[in-house]
Amino acid sequence: METEAFQKIDGGITIPKGFLAGGIYCGIRKTKKDIALIYSEKPAFAACVFTKNKVIAAPLIVDQLQLQKSKFISAIVVNSGNANACTGEKGIQDAWTMVNVTAETLRIPSEQVLVASTGVIGQYLPMEKITAGIKELSKKLSKEGGADAAEAIMTTDLIKKEIAVKVNLNSGVATIGGIAKGSGMIAPNMATMLAFITTDACINVAALEKALKMATDRSFNCITVDGDTSTNDMVAVLANGLAGNNEIIEGTKDFEIFYNALEFVMIALAKLIVRDGEGATKFIEIFVTGAKSELEAKQAARAVANSNLVKTAIHGADANWGRVIAAVGYSGIEFDPAKVCISFNDVPVLKQNYQIVIDEEKAKQALLEKDISILIELNQGSAQAKFWTCDLSKEYVSINASYRS
Amino acid sequence: METEAFQKIDGGITIPKGFLAGGIYCGIRKTKKDIALIYSEKPAFAACVFTKNKVIAAPLIVDQLQLQKSKFISAIVVNSGNANACTGEKGIQDAWTMVNVTAETLRIPSEQVLVASTGVIGQYLPMEKITAGIKELSKKLSKEGGADAAEAIMTTDLIKKEIAVKVNLNSGVATIGGIAKGSGMIAPNMATMLAFITTDACINVAALEKALKMATDRSFNCITVDGDTSTNDMVAVLANGLAGNNEIIEGTKDFEIFYNALEFVMIALAKLIVRDGEGATKFIEIFVTGAKSELEAKQAARAVANSNLVKTAIHGADANWGRVIAAVGYSGIEFDPAKVCISFNDVPVLKQNYQIVIDEEKAKQALLEKDISILIELNQGSAQAKFWTCDLSKEYVSINASYRS
Repeated sequence: METEAFQKIDGGITIPKGFLAGGIYCGIRKTKKDIALIYSEKPAFAACVFTKNKVIAAPLIVDQLQLQKSKFISAIVVNSGNANACTGEKGIQDAWTMVNVTAETLRIPSEQVLVASTGVIGQYLPMEKITAGIKELSKKLSKEGGADAAEAIMTTDLIKKEIAVKVNLNSGVATIGGIAKGSGMIAPNMATMLAFITTDACINVAALEKALKMATDRSFNCITVDGDTSTNDMVAVLANGLAGNNEIIEGTKDFEIFYNALEFVMIALAKLIVRDGEGATKFIEIFVTGAKSELEAKQAARAVANSNLVKTAIHGADANWGRVIAAVGYSGIEFDPAKVCISFNDVPVLKQNYQIVIDEEKAKQALLEKDISILIELNQGSAQAKFWTCDLSKEYVSINASYRS
Repeated sequence: METEAFQKIDGGITIPKGFLAGGIYCGIRKTKKDIALIYSEKPAFAACVFTKNKVIAAPLIVDQLQLQKSKFISAIVVNSGNANACTGEKGIQDAWTMVNVTAETLRIPSEQVLVASTGVIGQYLPMEKITAGIKELSKKLSKEGGADAAEAIMTTDLIKKEIAVKVNLNSGVATIGGIAKGSGMIAPNMATMLAFITTDACINVAALEKALKMATDRSFNCITVDGDTSTNDMVAVLANGLAGNNEIIEGTKDFEIFYNALEFVMIALAKLIVRDGEGATKFIEIFVTGAKSELEAKQAARAVANSNLVKTAIHGADANWGRVIAAVGYSGIEFDPAKVCISFNDVPVLKQNYQIVIDEEKAKQALLEKDISILIELNQGSAQAKFWTCDLSKEYVSINASYRS
């Protein structure tokens, strides 16, 4: 929710001062833009979170080494159409080449470059095309290029995902911008998703890392399209300090304001990913209340969000609350099923002691909406959590039965 | 695999001596048979496993109390079309009524009756129809009624599932028969599945329980259709001893023979469930070898079997091994991805050190088969495990978007 402390504004990653970006077609995909570059004129503090998958794509291995060498990052180069995952030593070499070509072209230290890839696993990158692409793209970096970058990182995404906010800190005004991609292989603990966030806020690197981790747990780690986590996921935030505010450190009012604005940006991007879920026709919010802990609330919400049976029922506008309570039942949390209440878009269907109050006509109407909210009241405690997902359609099957074709 | 010790024979649960069965239409469903009865002329030792879902359907609550009262069971009454789950106190009463009516009609002690239900959650049973149905059905119990019982327990199943084997014990010949139902909401730790197994083997009740638990872990707990576990799952085995063999106890050669035959019956029924998975067009066996432990092998196999992305790729005959290794990557086991080898139906696609050996044409041909085997060699140890699943098709979505309609 927006507050006095921050407001949504038009634009994306080039809204913050000192950031340029661009995106072009270099020949990895058939026709669509496939390479993006984000550049900060002043080296920026960087914080990143990476996939928890044990199979880690080459660019992420390179990035982890880069961040050990330097806290400052000036550029991020990203390609779509090829994940550079499961490509062994050659894949690592290729990721380093992307870093080095970007550094040489932009005349910046090579340790100030991060690299990301998304697309098919197990194929080598077409390095000649990419090298030429980076060189061409570096000349086209601009304040207007944020949307092109957002477009160039898309794979099966149908819409480009960008957002910006203005943040009213105590010591000045800063801005945060973000872009993301992802629509399948989306699951908690990242997903096939990339998100890049820029800010001109002046913030200490430890505070930036803390804010990113907390916000990731409440945004990108609370969405699921199909329960599959990917080899390439990463979220990076760059903070170049050009807004001129006093340095933000943990435990201050400004940290709180900055964190809330960052969380807003990341939840907005996460929701855009779910809305654009492969084959999605409906956006579903799972809201679990009355849990014993936030962890248990999330665990229950995740199980419901990942249930193919719940997702197909919602797809068919079927108020099948039995599948919802069954998913909570196998989520692994301890609870008394007789205390559970369930509503679909504020239409109650189950009250305590298995009082089934379903008005099929009313429930059906509610489920014909495009935005569905499933409220699950456990009545066991006072913790709560939200999770976001989409329905499961025939279109999802079509897209994924022939992804590589 | 069949051995000298046991052979598959025609028939199902009425093959073992002393067992009668039947199935009729009583009015729960629209037209199809919806109530089944299994009866042993001599009270039989019983062993059961139940769903691990925290939301437990009424009949399973009743059965657990029954088994505390009596080790001997003479009859199992089962209805399809309504799960009697999330039905509160009234649901429990209804399950007891099913038990009591069955006991009175068959003139057996009421503690010797088990009850099971499968179908929609959250609706009360039509008890008048069921009571009348049990009375009518009790007159029709016969040696020929096994197939009718198999049919009457079906819900979205397309084929009825039954099997029988002859077991050559050291002290005589016994037989085992089994029926099962299930095609959606199928996941490890049971599933929406019911299986009833009969045997005339004379076996001590502790040995029977041990054999059932072990075999469940290697059969029904190794299949998945959609990752959803249900509120109603149960496997029951009844052993009436009429074969006249010496009582089988644990640690003997006869226990080993009996166990192998029981496991064969249960794996066969489990595979039939997967073959009949909702919307399934392909049967998929995931075989993980070279794991550090059987537990880890199973964990990796389960993650691959539950991956919507793997299941849709196989549906589209796409040799997308990247999705297979990514699923192993998020399964939670520790392994070195560079050591992994993957084959589809004996066509290698990935060798160690990310050597991609894929011959797309050959792989495509292999994946056009109806039976698909995915071999994942971890090369980390010597343990292995198999898991069975089916592909994910548009038909699955159709079936589950309107299940209650």
